[in-house]
Amino acid sequence: MDIKLLKEINKNHLNCIVEVVALLVEVKVRTTKTEKQYADLIIQDTSKKMEVKYWEYEDNKQFFEGLGEATVVKIKGMVGEYQGQIQLTCKQIALLDSHEVRMADLIPTSDWGLDTLQKGLRYFYDKVEAPHLKSLLDQMIFTEEYYERFSTYPAARSVHHNFYHGLLQHVLEVLKFAYTVATTKKLTTRQQERLIVMCFLHDWAKIFEYKPLPTIGFTEEGTMLGHIFLGAHKSMNVMEEIEGFDHEDKLIILNGILGHHGKLEYGSPVLPKTVEAQILHHADCISGDIESILSFMTEQEESEETFTSKLWNMGTDYYKKGR
Amino acid sequence: MDIKLLKEINKNHLNCIVEVVALLVEVKVRTTKTEKQYADLIIQDTSKKMEVKYWEYEDNKQFFEGLGEATVVKIKGMVGEYQGQIQLTCKQIALLDSHEVRMADLIPTSDWGLDTLQKGLRYFYDKVEAPHLKSLLDQMIFTEEYYERFSTYPAARSVHHNFYHGLLQHVLEVLKFAYTVATTKKLTTRQQERLIVMCFLHDWAKIFEYKPLPTIGFTEEGTMLGHIFLGAHKSMNVMEEIEGFDHEDKLIILNGILGHHGKLEYGSPVLPKTVEAQILHHADCISGDIESILSFMTEQEESEETFTSKLWNMGTDYYKKGR
Amino acid sequence: MDIKLLKEINKNHLNCIVEVVALLVEVKVRTTKTEKQYADLIIQDTSKKMEVKYWEYEDNKQFFEGLGEATVVKIKGMVGEYQGQIQLTCKQIALLDSHEVRMADLIPTSDWGLDTLQKGLRYFYDKVEAPHLKSLLDQMIFTEEYYERFSTYPAARSVHHNFYHGLLQHVLEVLKFAYTVATTKKLTTRQQERLIVMCFLHDWAKIFEYKPLPTIGFTEEGTMLGHIFLGAHKSMNVMEEIEGFDHEDKLIILNGILGHHGKLEYGSPVLPKTVEAQILHHADCISGDIESILSFMTEQEESEETFTSKLWNMGTDYYKKGR
Amino acid sequence: MDIKLLKEINKNHLNCIVEVVALLVEVKVRTTKTEKQYADLIIQDTSKKMEVKYWEYEDNKQFFEGLGEATVVKIKGMVGEYQGQIQLTCKQIALLDSHEVRMADLIPTSDWGLDTLQKGLRYFYDKVEAPHLKSLLDQMIFTEEYYERFSTYPAARSVHHNFYHGLLQHVLEVLKFAYTVATTKKLTTRQQERLIVMCFLHDWAKIFEYKPLPTIGFTEEGTMLGHIFLGAHKSMNVMEEIEGFDHEDKLIILNGILGHHGKLEYGSPVLPKTVEAQILHHADCISGDIESILSFMTEQEESEETFTSKLWNMGTDYYKKGR
Amino acid sequence: MDIKLLKEINKNHLNCIVEVVALLVEVKVRTTKTEKQYADLIIQDTSKKMEVKYWEYEDNKQFFEGLGEATVVKIKGMVGEYQGQIQLTCKQIALLDSHEVRMADLIPTSDWGLDTLQKGLRYFYDKVEAPHLKSLLDQMIFTEEYYERFSTYPAARSVHHNFYHGLLQHVLEVLKFAYTVATTKKLTTRQQERLIVMCFLHDWAKIFEYKPLPTIGFTEEGTMLGHIFLGAHKSMNVMEEIEGFDHEDKLIILNGILGHHGKLEYGSPVLPKTVEAQILHHADCISGDIESILSFMTEQEESEETFTSKLWNMGTDYYKKGR
Amino acid sequence: MDIKLLKEINKNHLNCIVEVVALLVEVKVRTTKTEKQYADLIIQDTSKKMEVKYWEYEDNKQFFEGLGEATVVKIKGMVGEYQGQIQLTCKQIALLDSHEVRMADLIPTSDWGLDTLQKGLRYFYDKVEAPHLKSLLDQMIFTEEYYERFSTYPAARSVHHNFYHGLLQHVLEVLKFAYTVATTKKLTTRQQERLIVMCFLHDWAKIFEYKPLPTIGFTEEGTMLGHIFLGAHKSMNVMEEIEGFDHEDKLIILNGILGHHGKLEYGSPVLPKTVEAQILHHADCISGDIESILSFMTEQEESEETFTSKLWNMGTDYYKKGR
Repeated sequence: MDIKLLKEINKNHLNCIVEVVALLVEVKVRTTKTEKQYADLIIQDTSKKMEVKYWEYEDNKQFFEGLGEATVVKIKGMVGEYQGQIQLTCKQIALLDSHEVRMADLIPTSDWGLDTLQKGLRYFYDKVEAPHLKSLLDQMIFTEEYYERFSTYPAARSVHHNFYHGLLQHVLEVLKFAYTVATTKKLTTRQQERLIVMCFLHDWAKIFEYKPLPTIGFTEEGTMLGHIFLGAHKSMNVMEEIEGFDHEDKLIILNGILGHHGKLEYGSPVLPKTVEAQILHHADCISGDIESILSFMTEQEESEETFTSKLWNMGTDYYKKGR
Repeated sequence: MDIKLLKEINKNHLNCIVEVVALLVEVKVRTTKTEKQYADLIIQDTSKKMEVKYWEYEDNKQFFEGLGEATVVKIKGMVGEYQGQIQLTCKQIALLDSHEVRMADLIPTSDWGLDTLQKGLRYFYDKVEAPHLKSLLDQMIFTEEYYERFSTYPAARSVHHNFYHGLLQHVLEVLKFAYTVATTKKLTTRQQERLIVMCFLHDWAKIFEYKPLPTIGFTEEGTMLGHIFLGAHKSMNVMEEIEGFDHEDKLIILNGILGHHGKLEYGSPVLPKTVEAQILHHADCISGDIESILSFMTEQEESEETFTSKLWNMGTDYYKKGR
Repeated sequence: MDIKLLKEINKNHLNCIVEVVALLVEVKVRTTKTEKQYADLIIQDTSKKMEVKYWEYEDNKQFFEGLGEATVVKIKGMVGEYQGQIQLTCKQIALLDSHEVRMADLIPTSDWGLDTLQKGLRYFYDKVEAPHLKSLLDQMIFTEEYYERFSTYPAARSVHHNFYHGLLQHVLEVLKFAYTVATTKKLTTRQQERLIVMCFLHDWAKIFEYKPLPTIGFTEEGTMLGHIFLGAHKSMNVMEEIEGFDHEDKLIILNGILGHHGKLEYGSPVLPKTVEAQILHHADCISGDIESILSFMTEQEESEETFTSKLWNMGTDYYKKGR
Repeated sequence: MDIKLLKEINKNHLNCIVEVVALLVEVKVRTTKTEKQYADLIIQDTSKKMEVKYWEYEDNKQFFEGLGEATVVKIKGMVGEYQGQIQLTCKQIALLDSHEVRMADLIPTSDWGLDTLQKGLRYFYDKVEAPHLKSLLDQMIFTEEYYERFSTYPAARSVHHNFYHGLLQHVLEVLKFAYTVATTKKLTTRQQERLIVMCFLHDWAKIFEYKPLPTIGFTEEGTMLGHIFLGAHKSMNVMEEIEGFDHEDKLIILNGILGHHGKLEYGSPVLPKTVEAQILHHADCISGDIESILSFMTEQEESEETFTSKLWNMGTDYYKKGR
Repeated sequence: MDIKLLKEINKNHLNCIVEVVALLVEVKVRTTKTEKQYADLIIQDTSKKMEVKYWEYEDNKQFFEGLGEATVVKIKGMVGEYQGQIQLTCKQIALLDSHEVRMADLIPTSDWGLDTLQKGLRYFYDKVEAPHLKSLLDQMIFTEEYYERFSTYPAARSVHHNFYHGLLQHVLEVLKFAYTVATTKKLTTRQQERLIVMCFLHDWAKIFEYKPLPTIGFTEEGTMLGHIFLGAHKSMNVMEEIEGFDHEDKLIILNGILGHHGKLEYGSPVLPKTVEAQILHHADCISGDIESILSFMTEQEESEETFTSKLWNMGTDYYKKGR
Repeated sequence: MDIKLLKEINKNHLNCIVEVVALLVEVKVRTTKTEKQYADLIIQDTSKKMEVKYWEYEDNKQFFEGLGEATVVKIKGMVGEYQGQIQLTCKQIALLDSHEVRMADLIPTSDWGLDTLQKGLRYFYDKVEAPHLKSLLDQMIFTEEYYERFSTYPAARSVHHNFYHGLLQHVLEVLKFAYTVATTKKLTTRQQERLIVMCFLHDWAKIFEYKPLPTIGFTEEGTMLGHIFLGAHKSMNVMEEIEGFDHEDKLIILNGILGHHGKLEYGSPVLPKTVEAQILHHADCISGDIESILSFMTEQEESEETFTSKLWNMGTDYYKKGR
């Protein structure tokens, strides 16, 4: 049976065998009254979460040991129903290499489309003409070592852009907002190119601060050192290897990365000391705030209340009418 | 002698009679040792401040009584020098109706040009298609009663956009930034039109909060009630006279005006409760912050320091190299 | 059987039919094992909450559709007992117009008595002699359009004066405290009259910010615009229709309404700019704080602890001994 | 010549000898070109400050040694004029015992009149009937040891009630405000009596925290320990000597004294834990705030501005019209 | 059977009678279906908590009335098992005088050992040579009245040093840290001795602020007045009874006690005004912070996470690797 | 004449020629009435500031061009007096290489002595036994490239340790305080060694953040990037070049450097995440606070007041008696 999404499984499939590909996000081992162990699994894709019973757990313990926090599995199982909910009884379970599946089917993904995202990236990259700046972007982003991560990581753990390609979409938003300000306020070409580079790099180190999706969480390095330090550290090292990298550009770009949270109390160890750095900070804020409001309102669309509940990072509730 | 700007008067004119048009910004009455009163005047235009001696003060006291805080005068005077500074001895002084002079010659003025500003305004006005919103803009802005003020007032007393056409330029910047965000984040047409209206109106009441240029300062109404209240108050009254004004639009636009300072502690009595209101708040911030940095750096261009002094509203100094 | 309050129903009435008037505050529709729908109702008056079973729900669905959030009903029912609690089985249920009942029987009500409250109001009203101020009070309060609401609404959603006639009692407290300060500090008559007017009007717009009791909650207008703006807005419109309303009085009274929360971070868009406004702010604080402590201590009277739990708006616990 | 106030000395007295009684507030020793020492004195009374030349300084050095910070002197001198200002040349100078003069002539004094102040004190004292509370007041206030100080000290160094009898007037204001709240909110008699005692005692230790007028400043004890600790310390010692002093009253009154600044950040080591303590805190605030606004407005009455300058402790300027 | 610690009771004792000494920390009275009352007790020692059934409750009610919050009992009972947990059925229960048991067996206790603690105390006591300071310590600490409490009380209710001898250990840590700073920074002998005294006394009044262990909680006096006031109050009284107690030492030591929380918002009514007071404040902070981190990490040692959960008083999580 | 310190020059030298070595800290070019340029110089050493007239400025302009901010000069001049102050008239002026003078004669210097400081450094260095940690210290501190700077730079621009060898003394204080805490709290050897390394490195990058003494001020790099980032950046690079540098040690040491300001609002981009990092933060605070109080009190020793003026970074005044 050709099942693409978990939500496609319905009562018509009762007692049929189906095969699904999904994320295995929870394994709870339980004991029957006869002291036999079995497992309650939870699997999910973008469409739904579903419970799976796995009675052969005892025979297959070693499969579950050493599983990462969120793994892609292929499950063959019998469709059943329990308290009105569709649930599977697992017959076979196997790991899938994450390259065999489209991540976008399994976890929330940017709705801009990878193609649009990549075109946008190229559009701004092409605006940078100074060779040392171009070289900096080449080595930090458009290189085999980092590009895969940079173009798939999320930009936050929760609240905003916490989805596949999230970092990419966020960077692009920041670029668009910042560039509009830069041209409106007639910054020099040098300032504009520098600002573009700063937008590209400001959250770069989130690719080391977060664990790769579908896992959600910080790395040890991320918690102990943070993306602000890690990004400026790597950028400085790359700059120093580019021959003749302009000293003022170096200081300004590094200050921009260090200062992009805008205030010490938000984790920037220095304040933005240039107009470019201040624009970057504002563009970053807007991208985060607006996305978090929009995704929160989507989440709460179905409740009947006139206002959403309080969105914690914004400190207020939102009016749901009038759209 | 054909003098256009005060700075054109130099040592070559010593002992010549010149005629200048300038703002009279200070009148200090003094007494000679022989107990005769005379006046030390200060006049200014965009190029310079200059001292003027007026020995015939006693014969002409009534001229000075009842002068406003900053008046346009035509002065015929003899060029002299005192402690290395050019100074005038006034022979004749006369009021000039402010319509007889180009304000841009006398006070700092937006460098965008009125034409550009007006085209920008029209560009965004044309994007608003909903008749009730168009009607609101017509009655608040594009009406004889307010247009003159709206298009000439400053947007702040100091720090940013504190110049002729300053409000107009600020509103246009806010519109550009907000509109870029709105389209990037794919807001609905209804949201976009509402946002444009909110940008137009958010600082509208500054035309009552400030005294008209060249005077710089608050009106009594401005200090006691503030432009946030005054703008929402007037907007609500106009909305209620427009037949069938959509109730949700009304609440959202008024909340946007009331909430555009973004936080209670910045003087907004309510928080922004919609995504439009939040975008307006951010766009307003950026326009103010970036203009205040840029104009401050221009002011300090000539000092030899690597960094500016501390810009009080931003809480930091700025790096002057690299532009 | 003549039942006045729910708490009068006791085990002596078991299996009797009683008739009660109460607020219907919750309707939960449930399904029996035989798939028949019935309703679990909760009703309450000032004395008690009580559960009511309504087995005929399916036959009477349309009665429950379109019910407001808290409605007055007359119920005829059989007294039963379940797990030690008295409960009714509903035989008949009917809506009651809220005018047919004394609200004070159904919801918490000021213990000052309406008569006392109204005398107090009159006492201070009579102290205002300036015709334009008297006229302002006449049109804002002593008019058919608003008096009913003004004299019955609560002054807060929770914490203090959140009961029937709460706004009235709060206004009267504020008047008493403010007037004592004004006379002690020898304010001029003009200042005193203005202060009285400001006390009357400061929370006026709570009659639009809150839903009418017994419902507890904000209106859309209330959440989006707030009582501070709404009150000043309405007051300004009324003042402008009163011929020759003194301009200084207008600014001072409006500033007092706008500033009565005392600080920007508490939602006042401008600070109190006169001694009257500052007195109003303090009197408002005291009335709220003291009532919230007293009602909280009453609530916790029965616990055996020496101290109350922490009262969230005051940030501390209170000592219960020594009264 | 019968001079009562310094401001009475005018040009008509030029070259006459006058005798004045005033505070000597500054002594600057200077040297003439011939290396002879003389003194420039400044004296003041409630009406004016005046300069006095004292040429015989060298012959009279020991008079000036050991003078306190502000001493009452009788000066016989010749009236002169210097740069348009009346000034004296001292012929004789002598100390005056502070009991020989009416302090109210020399330093700013409460305009309530001592009689009114004392009647007020008595009025509230008489409301306290519980013997242990009466005894506490008797020993802390109505005793030879402290009464003189308590009835003449100021209540602050600047901003409010910083005048002769200032503490007395402040205590009376606090009593009036607090008592109005207590009766309006129907506190028990026990609570009311306790509240009266707390009002009497809350600032009691200012008589040890400040130096006696006309000196203005803190004692060492005052700076190191503060009136909050000193007052509670003394009160606790007195209570413990009163036989059978109620334990709850003791805790509540001491908590009231310790907590009367209302928040930890204002110097209270504990928060107000009773309704009486919270009333005391508010009444104390109002008395201070309102007096500081009123006296500041009086000070600035003569400037032509519509608004005062900013009053630092209140954080804002005040509107001067409309009184 | 010789049971020392609750954790020694295991399945081997099933159905045996054991005798244990433990703290009785909870008594819940319940009713059987046959309406007979029995009690569910909870007892604990440092090793474990355990449930105890007491069926003869009705016959022995008076035993439980008037029990304090945590009492030492000797229980003879039958070992049973319920849902996999060892539990006792009580046969006999009796109070034990707290002097009959070693508290360290029943509640968490400093792991420094009483001997080490006392030697440390003596070490610093011996450094104080000035007789009036020695006398102050003698009367406040080394006196029968207080020594027992001072050497057994905890230093906090939770977070840090909340164990038997906790205050003693905390005082010793503060002494060590402060003394290192004092000698490194070359303070005078007089300053060093004073600092030692201040360290000894700063938290002295915790012996009145807290209830004695094993009870955990504040006394009424503690909540209403706090240890900062109580400690300075007592110290001042003792100082005033010591003949010729140096006045400067008195002010400095009292300021040190009052100021040891370092900031007004942390409950100090005055700021530290000497270098000794500032050192005391820092040493107190470190002792508290470091102990709270260490004990929190010990608590969370067994979880598998790389980081602890968030430690509320420090506002962050801690890295558990690398020790 | 053998002059060592400027303060040795007195009235006995009037009209003599002296030779002095001092810092040239100010050059003001002035013009005589005859339009000739001359220079007013200010020179200083640790003992005094002194004015110097240099009449031959016009002949020697090129000498002054290109002088750094504070240069060591040898001046031969005539001793004169002006308005009671000793002043020189310069006859000859010459640059001195800073290696020809003992800096300690010219600028304030640690009073611990270089020998003591170096011994202290060695003492703690020897406690580190882990080879990778030792290697880190060797490359960061005990290397020709950095040791000179590390051992002479100040630790702050003002307030504390702003003198020659200031950084060295500060690091040593931090080591002493931190080590006392670590041993008292029984940290493991591994933790102790890591803590020592963190103390050594925490302010390391001040040698790039500040300009070298006698100049006082930030470098561009210092203002734009800050010593927190620069220090962690360099340390991370060095660690990565040390083969097999323990990963946990790396994270913990870098977190310690990044977190040593203790709170985000003080410029740390991450919080201290280990007990070592928290100890470092406290030890750093104490060293800075106590030194700033002590040096401030020394500065104000001579004023007659009982209290110092307010020390801005501590927010209070200090009691000067009792030492």
